[in-house]
Amino acid sequence: MPDFEEPIERLIEYFRSLPGVGKKTAQRYAFFVIENSRDKAVNFAKALVEAKDKVHLCKECGNYCASEICPICERRNQKVICVVQEPKDIVAMEKVKSFDGVYHVLFGCINPLENKGPNDIKLKELLARVGKNGVQEVICATNPDVEGEATAMYIAKLLKPMGVKVTRLAQGISIGSDIEFADEVTLEKALKSRQEI
Amino acid sequence: MPDFEEPIERLIEYFRSLPGVGKKTAQRYAFFVIENSRDKAVNFAKALVEAKDKVHLCKECGNYCASEICPICERRNQKVICVVQEPKDIVAMEKVKSFDGVYHVLFGCINPLENKGPNDIKLKELLARVGKNGVQEVICATNPDVEGEATAMYIAKLLKPMGVKVTRLAQGISIGSDIEFADEVTLEKALKSRQEI
Repeated sequence: MPDFEEPIERLIEYFRSLPGVGKKTAQRYAFFVIENSRDKAVNFAKALVEAKDKVHLCKECGNYCASEICPICERRNQKVICVVQEPKDIVAMEKVKSFDGVYHVLFGCINPLENKGPNDIKLKELLARVGKNGVQEVICATNPDVEGEATAMYIAKLLKPMGVKVTRLAQGISIGSDIEFADEVTLEKALKSRQEI
Repeated sequence: MPDFEEPIERLIEYFRSLPGVGKKTAQRYAFFVIENSRDKAVNFAKALVEAKDKVHLCKECGNYCASEICPICERRNQKVICVVQEPKDIVAMEKVKSFDGVYHVLFGCINPLENKGPNDIKLKELLARVGKNGVQEVICATNPDVEGEATAMYIAKLLKPMGVKVTRLAQGISIGSDIEFADEVTLEKALKSRQEI
């Protein structure tokens, strides 16, 4: 027998399907909804469907947006493209207020273990953008792991013949971290890329 | 400027209003909804409103239920009432398969610091139930803190003149825990209530 009657149980199930949500948390969310006003539940429900209906991928960069072209692509310097794996990486990058270029979302990276080759991510689209807009630099902000690294290398090989500068985010120790706890791979990279002061 | 356009931002805000959900988690939930099928979003939305519309408080015990009287009140022994503070406490108690009585939800406890007196929780309703059904025992399963303790004492004072046995969940060290890490109040209680083996 389930712990609750059907309408509660069903809501708990939906909350449980969210990433990282277990049974107890889902139950807590469901109780919160039930304890709050009907208006709030209705508006929450509307927001769910509306987000799904109105949010599309930007035709240019692949970021989530409500219009055809996202606000970043519309207003900013098209000559510098920062390549990221997922839309949520754009949120992180956008915290760096000084970056004025645009983005390109790959939706993944080259990952042979998951059977993801160059044709399974948005590389063709990147190539088309670079050819079209007189792009001067492509910054690879793929993740600093084996797959992200390989994807960056692949992009460099692809774009260099087109006369585009391809760069990669610097790798080293994080600001505010502790050298005592840094892993050896990061330290080795930081040592190799050391800079004169 | 917000991180996202309006429909995404609004959905994130609703997720953020859930208990214990911060900005990053809300964003993760919202992206999950956007990345999944429209059907799923619509059904999730429906479940939200339906839970709010169909779920009421059981007329007898105050537990959440979809009918007038909850399945527990309908089927089980009305002569033993277990008093709890919140509906979610019933879920925990129900894991003890051997309990065959019914419940009574107080919706809080007596808490002078929060200006909650005996009239602000469902004590009148408990009194009415005890008077009506020939109840033999009331088990106080309020929380083992000062407020829960005080509430249990108050209930005992209220019901004893009616000839009802009032009991309290035993307090002591938890099964599977470590005496080394038990706090002194719990240990003192466990020592006082020691039992011959």
